[in-house]
Amino acid sequence: MTFKSNLINIVLVETSHPGNIGSVARAMKTMGLSKLSLVNPKDFPSGDANALSGNARDVLDSAIIYSSLQEAIKQSTFVYATSARNRSINWPTVNPQTAADKIIDQALGNKEVSIIFGREDRGLTNEELQLANYHLEIPANPDYPVLNIAMSVQIVTYELFKQRNTSEDREWRDYPEINSEDLQRLIDHFVKTSIELDLIDPKNPSQIISRIKRMFSRLMPDSMEGNYLRGFLTAINKRLK
Amino acid sequence: MTFKSNLINIVLVETSHPGNIGSVARAMKTMGLSKLSLVNPKDFPSGDANALSGNARDVLDSAIIYSSLQEAIKQSTFVYATSARNRSINWPTVNPQTAADKIIDQALGNKEVSIIFGREDRGLTNEELQLANYHLEIPANPDYPVLNIAMSVQIVTYELFKQRNTSEDREWRDYPEINSEDLQRLIDHFVKTSIELDLIDPKNPSQIISRIKRMFSRLMPDSMEGNYLRGFLTAINKRLK
Repeated sequence: MTFKSNLINIVLVETSHPGNIGSVARAMKTMGLSKLSLVNPKDFPSGDANALSGNARDVLDSAIIYSSLQEAIKQSTFVYATSARNRSINWPTVNPQTAADKIIDQALGNKEVSIIFGREDRGLTNEELQLANYHLEIPANPDYPVLNIAMSVQIVTYELFKQRNTSEDREWRDYPEINSEDLQRLIDHFVKTSIELDLIDPKNPSQIISRIKRMFSRLMPDSMEGNYLRGFLTAINKRLK
Repeated sequence: MTFKSNLINIVLVETSHPGNIGSVARAMKTMGLSKLSLVNPKDFPSGDANALSGNARDVLDSAIIYSSLQEAIKQSTFVYATSARNRSINWPTVNPQTAADKIIDQALGNKEVSIIFGREDRGLTNEELQLANYHLEIPANPDYPVLNIAMSVQIVTYELFKQRNTSEDREWRDYPEINSEDLQRLIDHFVKTSIELDLIDPKNPSQIISRIKRMFSRLMPDSMEGNYLRGFLTAINKRLK
């Protein structure tokens, strides 16, 4: 039971300290992963990153830099975002063990999976968190749950490595899931149509847009469903003109 | 299920880089541990250690320095030594998950347990390894199994924390799911609206209605989402009149 390890995309958002990027590369390689995406790193490439990467310099050298998170994850079918508790809206949330189980199944189905890690000081924004199908929460001391970013990567990739031998493939879909970019486009289309229908006040959207994002993220539509829903919205748009 | 966390003694042998000691302290505290023993650290106390400990300075401040490993572990009933493969003699060896399981049982029995981590460059000597009841081996990439010492501590203490606090995947719903009757009504409404929009030919619906049913069944909307979707469809129906 095997899959290409570059189906698992580790994404770091606006990392401040280049040494952390090096430590992440080393952590990834110890667990057999190599695909690293960097969204607006503050200082990269960097001697500090190289110094802390050990013999994982190849992971650093092949890292890709993106100017937006959306761009970094757009080829991915499944997106996980690491988070702390206490968000404004609850989201499907898994621990690293459950996440590893799901991610391995998804990669065995030949889907790309992104796992997003946020800024050292303040994690991910709510908007970034809402790009994900799942939130991934590492169990930790409630009085001091502040893991270093590379430590978080080490734990998540360790769970992936550990479970790569023990999970089963269970694919039920007859069409592939749409990717993250198409999903976000579909959500935008739905929100825009809701505004046209006077269901959402764009000046005061309250929680409803978050709820819509969560609903579609949970659905993970396949391409047939995605096409149908786009056609449905387009038909409404035409009639409203 | 609870025990005094100072029954678990993290022991670092001849650590070269004080920054690693700081990172270990932080890793321990994130996982609710505080008892740190240092055997002949090369440079401690140290500004580098403090800098990397984050808010785990208390763990560093209460660390005890020993001049021999035997001294550091002598109060312990059970001793685990982290190791890489390829030892001259086989030893009872466990992975971090199994180790955590045993260690928690042992601490619940009010026994002190030491977990030993070796030097950054060459681990533990055979003699040191043979002080342990068990060897603890972290599964890793056979081509590059070289974890940073603080990463190893983070993984082992994570497994301990995880199994002490067996948390369920968190329920994310803030409203109850709609029941089957309401779900079927919602599906009918969606299909009817699709027909009004000329997206489905009622005389020849083919597979599309089955697909719509499957899609909504998979979504399992909550009552807030159900209301929103009903409102969305009703708004369309009004405009089409």
